[in-house]
Amino acid sequence: MENTGSGKKLTMGIDIGGTKIAGGLVNKSGRLVRSLVIPTLANRGVKASLGQVFRLIERLTREAGGKDGLVGIGMCAPGPLNPRRGIVLNPPNLPGWRNVPLARLVEERFGVNAVVENDANAAGLAEVLFGAAAGYRNVFYITVSTGIGTGVIIDRKIYHGKNGVAGEGGHVSIDYKSPFVCGCGTRGCIEALASGPSMVRRARVRLEQEPGVPSLLRRRIRDDRGLITPAIIADAARRHDPIARSILEETGFFLGVWLGGMVSVLDPEAVVIGGGVAQIGKPLFDRIRETLPEYTINRKFVASLPILPAKLRKNVGVFGAASLFLPPK
Amino acid sequence: MENTGSGKKLTMGIDIGGTKIAGGLVNKSGRLVRSLVIPTLANRGVKASLGQVFRLIERLTREAGGKDGLVGIGMCAPGPLNPRRGIVLNPPNLPGWRNVPLARLVEERFGVNAVVENDANAAGLAEVLFGAAAGYRNVFYITVSTGIGTGVIIDRKIYHGKNGVAGEGGHVSIDYKSPFVCGCGTRGCIEALASGPSMVRRARVRLEQEPGVPSLLRRRIRDDRGLITPAIIADAARRHDPIARSILEETGFFLGVWLGGMVSVLDPEAVVIGGGVAQIGKPLFDRIRETLPEYTINRKFVASLPILPAKLRKNVGVFGAASLFLPPK
Repeated sequence: MENTGSGKKLTMGIDIGGTKIAGGLVNKSGRLVRSLVIPTLANRGVKASLGQVFRLIERLTREAGGKDGLVGIGMCAPGPLNPRRGIVLNPPNLPGWRNVPLARLVEERFGVNAVVENDANAAGLAEVLFGAAAGYRNVFYITVSTGIGTGVIIDRKIYHGKNGVAGEGGHVSIDYKSPFVCGCGTRGCIEALASGPSMVRRARVRLEQEPGVPSLLRRRIRDDRGLITPAIIADAARRHDPIARSILEETGFFLGVWLGGMVSVLDPEAVVIGGGVAQIGKPLFDRIRETLPEYTINRKFVASLPILPAKLRKNVGVFGAASLFLPPK
Repeated sequence: MENTGSGKKLTMGIDIGGTKIAGGLVNKSGRLVRSLVIPTLANRGVKASLGQVFRLIERLTREAGGKDGLVGIGMCAPGPLNPRRGIVLNPPNLPGWRNVPLARLVEERFGVNAVVENDANAAGLAEVLFGAAAGYRNVFYITVSTGIGTGVIIDRKIYHGKNGVAGEGGHVSIDYKSPFVCGCGTRGCIEALASGPSMVRRARVRLEQEPGVPSLLRRRIRDDRGLITPAIIADAARRHDPIARSILEETGFFLGVWLGGMVSVLDPEAVVIGGGVAQIGKPLFDRIRETLPEYTINRKFVASLPILPAKLRKNVGVFGAASLFLPPK
């Protein structure tokens, strides 16, 4: 095993998701030297899923040559959580978790420093330290998938705010009277309009409202509209399907409107967009870039604003969690 | 004259507005020991109005006992401007000003360090250092008057962003398909919906659309709708005028929706609301507080979020400009 037995050289990153827990060991130069994935067993409740977290940490600790081979254990989990106190509050994706003092539990059990961070914040930091935004210090990170998470990175550090819940840009409303209300309760927030499930919902509505318009989406899913996914929409759009294209364009437009506001407030050096939906790529990014200057007072500056696709796809959570132990340069 | 002739003890603050230039000398304990106001003469062009700035600085320098009595000269002006380079770009309220290197001009002429800041940012800093938010470090400042300006104060410093144009929260859209488009070009930004002139415009529309509804506004202005002001609307609302009340409520609602988004992103320790419109007070603040939790994911925390009326009314610009030379504690 590399880098073991010779002092504290590896950082452990643990990414706790609703279906799987990914873990890895990252060395000083930012290379992932070992990675493992196990199921979360979320449905069996907090005892079982927390047990899985401990099991993974145990295995990786062994691979690092014991706790003395570790700088620390960084963990990320879905919000809401309190990063300062290391407490996971009550994430919808982790049933039974309620005010779990995760950092303390891990520290007590393994005798290694541990911290916990919101997954979007951690991913944003990872992109700044190792990914698409390497070289920048002030970055707005967005992940568009089942939800829309964001991270505000200022001076290569996560901006936390008073209660550790800053950077929740996904829940800024751009349409206060929208028919779409988010799980967070906000009407017309960008997550309610442009996340993967929101795209699918908008596609369903369109297919129902326009039964006369032919669409590949109807054929592909054989009229069972429950099977639409963002990937299917993107694929149909590539084949010039009118409804799919307009759903994509609308998604890019919504993201552009919203990003315009964020740019007015934050004036970042760069924006990084990750998450499954972002992998649709060019048609989405083009529409975002097109809309952005129309919805910000800082339009003069957006022409030169880098809007970058995320680079750390599969292991972004593990890198993000490990990043928490890397001091800002 | 107090505090002169004995080293650098006073800071000069100059607040350049469209109609008047206010200046003052602030001592180390944050007391305004001298203040002066002269007309801007903006309509006579950049040479005349810049001449007025120099004249005021000259008089105040004399009152400080010469340049050796000064720590520095802080100035604030309407945006857009570049605070890092001290350049005023092209504020609509200062005709003829175009890329004026104000800080350099003042430094060369008076031999004293000079800086320039956006007026809302400076006012926000002043409220944190001397005003309503004294004791807090991370504050979102809002001024609602002819426009809506904001300042993001992080760790008792103005957050500038990459190009020095961060903190333009007034131009975040909460209604991307609104009929109201801001001077900045953004559709449905909060300035287009809730500034003083926007309130007046909404009142006019209501009076036209509802000719049958009796309203004090009609009588007070004798059907000349051009004469409505936010103060008249507030006064009519106090007398239970239904149209005036609903305009105020809508204004508070819009501000609450928008502030909800800002709180999701920034999670500040406190919010300070200043500007002429904010002096309407309770009915506006109540509605903002009522709406806020409905439009943020951080609703759990907003119950304890202080939303404070600004404290430094008349001299906020002078204090703000002088604050630029006070090191953060």
